[in-house]
Amino acid sequence: MSYKTYKYEGLKKLCNAVFEKFGFNKNDSENITDVLLLSDLFGIESHGIQRLAKYYKEIKSGLVKVNSRIKIVKETPISAVIDAGESIGQVVGKKAMNIAIEKAKNTGMGIVLVNNSNHYGIAGYYARMAQEQGLLGISMTNSPAITVPTFGKEAMMGSNPIAISMPASPYPFLMDMSTSVVTRGKIEVYNKRNEELPAGWAINSEGDDTSDAKEVLYDIANKEGGGIVPLGGSEEISGGHKGYGFALTVELFTAILSGGLTANYVHMNGVSGTCHSFIAIDYGMFGDKKIIEKNFSEYLNEIRESKKANGKYRVYIHGEKEFEAYNDKIKNGIPINDNTLKEIDEICKYFNLKIDDYIVQ
Amino acid sequence: MSYKTYKYEGLKKLCNAVFEKFGFNKNDSENITDVLLLSDLFGIESHGIQRLAKYYKEIKSGLVKVNSRIKIVKETPISAVIDAGESIGQVVGKKAMNIAIEKAKNTGMGIVLVNNSNHYGIAGYYARMAQEQGLLGISMTNSPAITVPTFGKEAMMGSNPIAISMPASPYPFLMDMSTSVVTRGKIEVYNKRNEELPAGWAINSEGDDTSDAKEVLYDIANKEGGGIVPLGGSEEISGGHKGYGFALTVELFTAILSGGLTANYVHMNGVSGTCHSFIAIDYGMFGDKKIIEKNFSEYLNEIRESKKANGKYRVYIHGEKEFEAYNDKIKNGIPINDNTLKEIDEICKYFNLKIDDYIVQ
Repeated sequence: MSYKTYKYEGLKKLCNAVFEKFGFNKNDSENITDVLLLSDLFGIESHGIQRLAKYYKEIKSGLVKVNSRIKIVKETPISAVIDAGESIGQVVGKKAMNIAIEKAKNTGMGIVLVNNSNHYGIAGYYARMAQEQGLLGISMTNSPAITVPTFGKEAMMGSNPIAISMPASPYPFLMDMSTSVVTRGKIEVYNKRNEELPAGWAINSEGDDTSDAKEVLYDIANKEGGGIVPLGGSEEISGGHKGYGFALTVELFTAILSGGLTANYVHMNGVSGTCHSFIAIDYGMFGDKKIIEKNFSEYLNEIRESKKANGKYRVYIHGEKEFEAYNDKIKNGIPINDNTLKEIDEICKYFNLKIDDYIVQ
Repeated sequence: MSYKTYKYEGLKKLCNAVFEKFGFNKNDSENITDVLLLSDLFGIESHGIQRLAKYYKEIKSGLVKVNSRIKIVKETPISAVIDAGESIGQVVGKKAMNIAIEKAKNTGMGIVLVNNSNHYGIAGYYARMAQEQGLLGISMTNSPAITVPTFGKEAMMGSNPIAISMPASPYPFLMDMSTSVVTRGKIEVYNKRNEELPAGWAINSEGDDTSDAKEVLYDIANKEGGGIVPLGGSEEISGGHKGYGFALTVELFTAILSGGLTANYVHMNGVSGTCHSFIAIDYGMFGDKKIIEKNFSEYLNEIRESKKANGKYRVYIHGEKEFEAYNDKIKNGIPINDNTLKEIDEICKYFNLKIDDYIVQ
């Protein structure tokens, strides 16, 4: 696969134009674009502009509704439950986190749960929204089932990322990670490259370890059994039951508490049913915010400056790599692979958009 | 090491008597005993009655204050921050979770942070307190530094358990697990048995993998570098940065937000400074509680009944093993190892208590 690098501004204009052609209004289009391209800017290609073609398919198939009715079905001063009406995840996601942020500013805390939604991009986007408002932000989502429980061989939980962001210097803290040992996207990369999977990532339909990426992807897609193992691996001795517990926690905080579908029912029978949660905390209720931020920044710096393991030269804090990638890519552009560009070009042609009117290398 | 089994009721009377001799009032003694013995009933020996001698040492050294002044230093309708005044963790822990529970019943949510405390036993005890009141409960604590950051070789985070409990049938959901791949207690067991550590648990002071339990314990205790690796292992390919992220999350929700000490300063210079957090959520604010509990129980049952991996015969839900152990041990007694019994006997003699007046096999 080869890559060409394009300026952020051009890609943004292109995405906005394409989403408007998909039928989204200007505001929704800008919101979806913003979530997608932040992923590319952070260096997370799997959740970025390469999703355009997939989203278009999901809109055509009716899985994603362009003009969904997003409804608050239950609300308290600190909480809300939202029926997304099969919205694309980014549109309901930004609304939901904004509600959580407003509640947190009023009461100290906002927890907003969403059911009946779709893929919402990177969880970290929403956690960061709260952090940019000087709050502690958390977001989680379930997904179609890809993760097997410890000692099981049927995928029962999603990739189930947890993202947490908190103001700090010189970079905000921003962790965003699946509770499976790796995401399905990572397995897809190995499959495309025809490489063997590292030991301890996935099991086949018999429940045995496998290094065959193609087999794992086929088994997940066709519910043949097998899947990706939880963070910590397939056995208790390496802590697999802990990753499994975090994956269940995400199902609890997304599907169960919102009254929506758990991963094993997501994307079945033509319905997505993906569930998310959005939490904002105004830590001013615990103490002086400036002092809390200073203490946190100092602790993270002590960790950065702590002694390095043999052959390692840097200890990273979560988010550091992403913000460094962001600074680089805003300046130097975002690499797009040829396949993705071809897919986008086809969509543009279909809608009578000239791709070269938008993007610049 | 050989074990003898003793009835729960007798052990309870003994513990109560011993804690009163340590100087705690009747109520505090009962609370500490209840937390300790639930650990033994759950089959978690490391956090049970075997801690008696250690606690006694910590009281004598002044690390734990028997008549501590526990003070609420900041409070809102949904939150509180408590200065434990160097209390034993169980006494302030039960108070703090009760405050969180009361707030949750009034507002939907209670989040209570504690600084300046000590070891509080199993985190799961406090999460279960909320669950027993029909709420979702969460508790976390930091500890002296034992966990190294990814690519580092200095322990900068504690064992940092996260416990979450939620009503469900036939057993409540109760996960309680360190964010390090294993706890220090597990390493101690391997050391006592003179067994090699499994690969991927710990690194030595050079930052290389080690199977030498004695070396790891010495290095941690003497801050020589090295320690236990985060859940997910020492490399990013196996997700070690994820466990590291969860460990940092616990430091954030305990030490940082409460204004207390992070793990790398806990138990330094004769001060403990351990920090905890206690969260209770009344999920009635999201929907009908009975329906939420029913949906959760059904999902957990689907997982229990899902297909098993080769050579495995059961898929467990978190808490199941503990509640089964509980039922067995309430009926048949708690196994106590000879060393622990000897330690307790010495304490009893010192206080003119006759151990045989209390415990029965």
